[in-house]
Amino acid sequence: MKISEDQIKSLNAAKITEHQTKLAPLKERLELRGFDTGNIIRRLRSFQVAIPSWALGTGGTRFGRFPGGGEPRSLEEKLEDIGLLNTLNQSSGAVSLHIPWDIPEDPEGTRALADDLGIKFDAVNSNTFQDQPGEKHSYKFGSLSHVNKDVRAQAIAHNKEVIDYGAKLGSKALTVWLADGSSFPGQNNFMKAFSNTKDSLESIYDHMPDDWKMLIEYKPYEPNFYSMVIPDWGTSHLLATKLGQRAYSLVDLGHHLPNTNIEQIVALLMHVGKLGGFHFNDSKYGDDDLTVGSLKPYQLMLIFNELVLGLASDPKLEISWMIDASHNLKDPLEDLIQSVEAIKIAYAQALIIDHKLLQMAQESNDVTLAQEILQDAFRTDVRPLLAEASRESNGSLHPLLTYRKLKVREHLIKERGNKTYSTGL
Amino acid sequence: MKISEDQIKSLNAAKITEHQTKLAPLKERLELRGFDTGNIIRRLRSFQVAIPSWALGTGGTRFGRFPGGGEPRSLEEKLEDIGLLNTLNQSSGAVSLHIPWDIPEDPEGTRALADDLGIKFDAVNSNTFQDQPGEKHSYKFGSLSHVNKDVRAQAIAHNKEVIDYGAKLGSKALTVWLADGSSFPGQNNFMKAFSNTKDSLESIYDHMPDDWKMLIEYKPYEPNFYSMVIPDWGTSHLLATKLGQRAYSLVDLGHHLPNTNIEQIVALLMHVGKLGGFHFNDSKYGDDDLTVGSLKPYQLMLIFNELVLGLASDPKLEISWMIDASHNLKDPLEDLIQSVEAIKIAYAQALIIDHKLLQMAQESNDVTLAQEILQDAFRTDVRPLLAEASRESNGSLHPLLTYRKLKVREHLIKERGNKTYSTGL
Amino acid sequence: MKISEDQIKSLNAAKITEHQTKLAPLKERLELRGFDTGNIIRRLRSFQVAIPSWALGTGGTRFGRFPGGGEPRSLEEKLEDIGLLNTLNQSSGAVSLHIPWDIPEDPEGTRALADDLGIKFDAVNSNTFQDQPGEKHSYKFGSLSHVNKDVRAQAIAHNKEVIDYGAKLGSKALTVWLADGSSFPGQNNFMKAFSNTKDSLESIYDHMPDDWKMLIEYKPYEPNFYSMVIPDWGTSHLLATKLGQRAYSLVDLGHHLPNTNIEQIVALLMHVGKLGGFHFNDSKYGDDDLTVGSLKPYQLMLIFNELVLGLASDPKLEISWMIDASHNLKDPLEDLIQSVEAIKIAYAQALIIDHKLLQMAQESNDVTLAQEILQDAFRTDVRPLLAEASRESNGSLHPLLTYRKLKVREHLIKERGNKTYSTGL
Amino acid sequence: MKISEDQIKSLNAAKITEHQTKLAPLKERLELRGFDTGNIIRRLRSFQVAIPSWALGTGGTRFGRFPGGGEPRSLEEKLEDIGLLNTLNQSSGAVSLHIPWDIPEDPEGTRALADDLGIKFDAVNSNTFQDQPGEKHSYKFGSLSHVNKDVRAQAIAHNKEVIDYGAKLGSKALTVWLADGSSFPGQNNFMKAFSNTKDSLESIYDHMPDDWKMLIEYKPYEPNFYSMVIPDWGTSHLLATKLGQRAYSLVDLGHHLPNTNIEQIVALLMHVGKLGGFHFNDSKYGDDDLTVGSLKPYQLMLIFNELVLGLASDPKLEISWMIDASHNLKDPLEDLIQSVEAIKIAYAQALIIDHKLLQMAQESNDVTLAQEILQDAFRTDVRPLLAEASRESNGSLHPLLTYRKLKVREHLIKERGNKTYSTGL
Repeated sequence: MKISEDQIKSLNAAKITEHQTKLAPLKERLELRGFDTGNIIRRLRSFQVAIPSWALGTGGTRFGRFPGGGEPRSLEEKLEDIGLLNTLNQSSGAVSLHIPWDIPEDPEGTRALADDLGIKFDAVNSNTFQDQPGEKHSYKFGSLSHVNKDVRAQAIAHNKEVIDYGAKLGSKALTVWLADGSSFPGQNNFMKAFSNTKDSLESIYDHMPDDWKMLIEYKPYEPNFYSMVIPDWGTSHLLATKLGQRAYSLVDLGHHLPNTNIEQIVALLMHVGKLGGFHFNDSKYGDDDLTVGSLKPYQLMLIFNELVLGLASDPKLEISWMIDASHNLKDPLEDLIQSVEAIKIAYAQALIIDHKLLQMAQESNDVTLAQEILQDAFRTDVRPLLAEASRESNGSLHPLLTYRKLKVREHLIKERGNKTYSTGL
Repeated sequence: MKISEDQIKSLNAAKITEHQTKLAPLKERLELRGFDTGNIIRRLRSFQVAIPSWALGTGGTRFGRFPGGGEPRSLEEKLEDIGLLNTLNQSSGAVSLHIPWDIPEDPEGTRALADDLGIKFDAVNSNTFQDQPGEKHSYKFGSLSHVNKDVRAQAIAHNKEVIDYGAKLGSKALTVWLADGSSFPGQNNFMKAFSNTKDSLESIYDHMPDDWKMLIEYKPYEPNFYSMVIPDWGTSHLLATKLGQRAYSLVDLGHHLPNTNIEQIVALLMHVGKLGGFHFNDSKYGDDDLTVGSLKPYQLMLIFNELVLGLASDPKLEISWMIDASHNLKDPLEDLIQSVEAIKIAYAQALIIDHKLLQMAQESNDVTLAQEILQDAFRTDVRPLLAEASRESNGSLHPLLTYRKLKVREHLIKERGNKTYSTGL
Repeated sequence: MKISEDQIKSLNAAKITEHQTKLAPLKERLELRGFDTGNIIRRLRSFQVAIPSWALGTGGTRFGRFPGGGEPRSLEEKLEDIGLLNTLNQSSGAVSLHIPWDIPEDPEGTRALADDLGIKFDAVNSNTFQDQPGEKHSYKFGSLSHVNKDVRAQAIAHNKEVIDYGAKLGSKALTVWLADGSSFPGQNNFMKAFSNTKDSLESIYDHMPDDWKMLIEYKPYEPNFYSMVIPDWGTSHLLATKLGQRAYSLVDLGHHLPNTNIEQIVALLMHVGKLGGFHFNDSKYGDDDLTVGSLKPYQLMLIFNELVLGLASDPKLEISWMIDASHNLKDPLEDLIQSVEAIKIAYAQALIIDHKLLQMAQESNDVTLAQEILQDAFRTDVRPLLAEASRESNGSLHPLLTYRKLKVREHLIKERGNKTYSTGL
Repeated sequence: MKISEDQIKSLNAAKITEHQTKLAPLKERLELRGFDTGNIIRRLRSFQVAIPSWALGTGGTRFGRFPGGGEPRSLEEKLEDIGLLNTLNQSSGAVSLHIPWDIPEDPEGTRALADDLGIKFDAVNSNTFQDQPGEKHSYKFGSLSHVNKDVRAQAIAHNKEVIDYGAKLGSKALTVWLADGSSFPGQNNFMKAFSNTKDSLESIYDHMPDDWKMLIEYKPYEPNFYSMVIPDWGTSHLLATKLGQRAYSLVDLGHHLPNTNIEQIVALLMHVGKLGGFHFNDSKYGDDDLTVGSLKPYQLMLIFNELVLGLASDPKLEISWMIDASHNLKDPLEDLIQSVEAIKIAYAQALIIDHKLLQMAQESNDVTLAQEILQDAFRTDVRPLLAEASRESNGSLHPLLTYRKLKVREHLIKERGNKTYSTGL
């Protein structure tokens, strides 16, 4: 299925007056306060967040998986789904591939299809948390940190292979999420596990083309339940520092202990020039992988506030943005539409924070005022700015409504059947 | 210091056009969708949240206390501060007294002053978590749950005395927050501590006038760090059930373990007719006692959504609302203004949730739509509704701005001095 | 494979001197302090903890599953595994069946086999958290709490069927663990979900034979990540109270929010006569399902201390004990041997707590002494008591050593193959 | 009050037979397994943990403080209390001074008294979390990170002064615990707060004598409830790296988010040579400051396991050990006796872990065995080793019993009165 520009234009046309009635007074008010709304809209338009190739199918928990219908059956169909999404919101023009779930058997064809759909290849992801048929060694007890150097060698080779696949498609980064760790005290020697990991990553780092980055993800627990080899930003940062200039930390919103102040981590990593990637999702308990913004929208704005500040002070910084959620209950495409919208809302809110005034409040320790400034931005209804950004890029004023009006899922089910099963968790 | 209606009117006049420019389109949009905005504004106007008598001074942590200036030096000055607050926002027309920090030595005079200021007496609070000079027994090892019946008797007598004070002022409820518990395994026999507590509460319950309620607060830890005698809603509810029809649970937002779904507790307690009181504040880690809405505004709306639903299904339910925060860094009055505003914003958002549509979404398991409905309400800028509600009640369009314009704190410092010290924590 | 009494006796014989050298001074010291060690050993001997039928195979996480070898391929082989375990430790003489993973197609045959192996049938478990082939309705959006009464009816019927299976085998209890809940705010109406659940449970309750109990499990999150219909002991207890005298709460150690004082919940539930079942495991982060005692052995003793106290004050109380862990990394049988040993160690420690002295310490608020008493018991090496209890029941002095010496796993792999796959998660 | 060697010897004499009856078989068993028990006892004897000068008085929470009797009224009396403690257990021969709570007005006299009592001066502690009378600037909004450079200068000068005091007494390290942070989003600019902190610490670092270390403590929250400037080990380590070779991280057991794997942090910090100090206490919820080992004794052993491993691989590493608890309910001296004993028990257990066997288990991924090895050590009753170590150093076989037998507290109350009040929190 494809959505045409005309379809979107005609649906937009029906809503354009209402849209402008909302947009005009908002722009006026913001401009009175000194904001350049044209620039804000431009920044919203240029923001692109990658969709991982495994996010188009139904996710599951260890207790079960309840598949939906019309799931993509191949990498090509996954790209098509991302194309649909991007046509709607004009903000998802990139894919993050997972190997071996989505091996591009025909890289040139895949690249051509992606070009055709307007999709770029963002960071590629390796997988050493599952065993694959035919592999000599099991990752049951680790991969890059394994006590046995043959297992480490296999895991290193896999990561290098992922880089090679990515290079053929135009990716410029490798994301390493390491599930390695231990579930019982005594199982691992922490120091050796760390050392082995560092050595393995060094070997992978050396294999990267010169214009590539390595993004090192951290996670405190799951699938291991006593220790993880890279449990926190501190360990990720330490490894990134030891590896070299092109190694960075990657923050996944769900990968923190209860009550962690994530925005402060983001600020610090940017301050030292080591924030390389970002995985968006939301959660209440752990790595719940829920729709972005569905639980803690204010935290999301606070994070974007740091990102805006950090990017302002270091404009060369390039961060790989990706959504990393598990769509257990919702239609994956609807979930992604909601996630991208929540991200852009948070970004727009952060862009209308009056940072000069905030700095004044901070410098005079006017805590009340500082809070007022942030909350004023947060309480402002910025959705007209998003709609306008989308419209100016030929996207839909209301991606979710359009998705439902065009009966996208029904079409996909008709094309692909009701019992398809997409690779992923 | 007093703020006159005229002062407020004149400040409002300067902002009235801007206000109406924002209010009109919001009302129009809501009415198009079937909401009765007049009713919403009426409900916002009638919402009153009590201010505890200890909240007008600077709070502290165990590590220190940094006093501000102009703090009230007496119960009378505390009432005056609440009067100032209420003049500004017309939503804080009640006080919740704490005994013995604020003993009304002259109940008639206190009542007359309160009447004059338009302030009612909400629930009274007892204190058995500190020793008072002249008391025979110490509460170091508990009060209502103490192993020694003489200590329990003293604590019971204190609670009865608090009821008597309250009765003279027109209060209709006693709030019992019990700090009892243990900091080490073995210190307490859980069963006996529970039993003693139940017996003590029964004796206090019997002392209450017939039109009084008892509100039983729960808290998982602090000041005891291993167990608390009433750690969770389940224990509070169990006690309330055993005590009788006029015993209820009281929910304090900060009194939950990490990640607790508080809104579900609120819903369940209302469902079984046992929610009697509510203490508002916000927190990131524990009982942080921060400004309401400063950390988790979405959670606050979700809670108000349950309150609106619960009150709709049981209109006789009367809940004691109170702010219970500790103002360590901000001017206490500014903190309270922000808190009341955050509460009313959450309430207004809950009032513009389309509950019919939500029910339809729930009944068809349309999870995406259910989220859209809640978030649409949350993303709407409802501040014009609050401003209108305040204005119609002769309050300020912008309480905080007015507070600063009128230099209230400067006046209070002039009147009371810079080194005053208010009773409380 | 079967282990004969003779094999165990002969292995015990080699260790008997060493054992007695350790046991004698321990007994002497305990008896000097007034303990009846004969009685302690008898109580250890009579303690039996059920093994769930799904615990004999490898478990997994949502990220993967790394199967071991020799896993039981049928219900019969599962019973045989439990038989092996029980032969070794003489404490695991019961099985808890899960339907539909282990449907007893031939109840009489199954019962005869179990009799032969000395295994009883403890509580049976229903499953409405997964869809089964051929079922009309999906549990994707709930079961007993579902908005659609046809789905509820199907789930109710399943639970009744489970009771019927259980009745044929001699079980006397149904454990209901309800995965129902919501992953997003707005998805569920909390009050209706609770109401529906109550009604469904009532219907199931009415179907139980007169000598049956219903055990209602609670869990705060997972597989739903915003709310669970029965999230905490308070809700479980409320339901059990509404259902009737034969409905009880079931505590699973892993089903609590961070930092919960579980032992206090246990004490309170016993105090009100509503503790019916117990699922043992250990965890650091969430429902990690690790080997009992592997992370928090002191908490385990504190829980057993409450159990000993509660059983002493209400000797008629019968509690269903079960291990509920997921063996992702260890040989399941070894994991179970370690779990049973940890449970018995905690029990033995609780049995040598000097409760009279403890009571004195509590009554004089001698906190230091209270801690000393508990920790003295905890620091005592009680393993000789366990060994003796096992030996007197014809079990092994060292079950794990014996298991390895007899090369049980190697034999099972030979019998069943290396690529077997047991039903379960 | 002083306890003489003779008093201890005579009390020991009464217990010596019992002691030897327990010690002999333990030594025999350990030696059979290849341990050098003489060496273990020597290591226990040489282990010394500092007592902070504020730990001899009653602690409190923000809700209240219930003083005990006989608290030291001066620095001299605090040293005397530590002397008493050290006479009993021979493991507390060091004090950690807090400035300005315990300013050594007469350094030479203080040093002489300490020498006389056999007490050394460990790390000194600065305090910029409270305002002191006469100071020009307030730390209400921070100290080393403050937006105002004059406040930073005052805080820097205070730290330098603390170093100067320490130098006169023979201390060799400064511990910096920074309470700086923010309680509300927007209050702080994270990057500037970090930068200011770094600059301030650099200035203090430069002031240290060449043989001094700086120990940088971290804490996630309290007294600030949104962010702390040094919230985690990662930030502490980053600062220590930037400052130079003599800057180290300090781990306080209570300063971690829920569920943190502290032992892994300890291992990693040792691995990179940056662990400089350790504050012992225990907790269930937050920075509860309870008696060491009273809640999580197994975690304590796992931490000591890492310390033993780390010290073995880097023998030059010198770590400042200190107890940092708050004695709200127990007699402070009894609390400290229990804490030191718990520490030594954990250390002894770690010393009888068979590390060669553990390494074999790890290298063959024998998770079951790895757990057995750790738990075997943990389940062993090592108290006879402690008693022997104490006895050989002329300390008491049973410090707590001796303390009570000698009625130390009663004597102190007689000397100092019942209403003394010690400086501290």
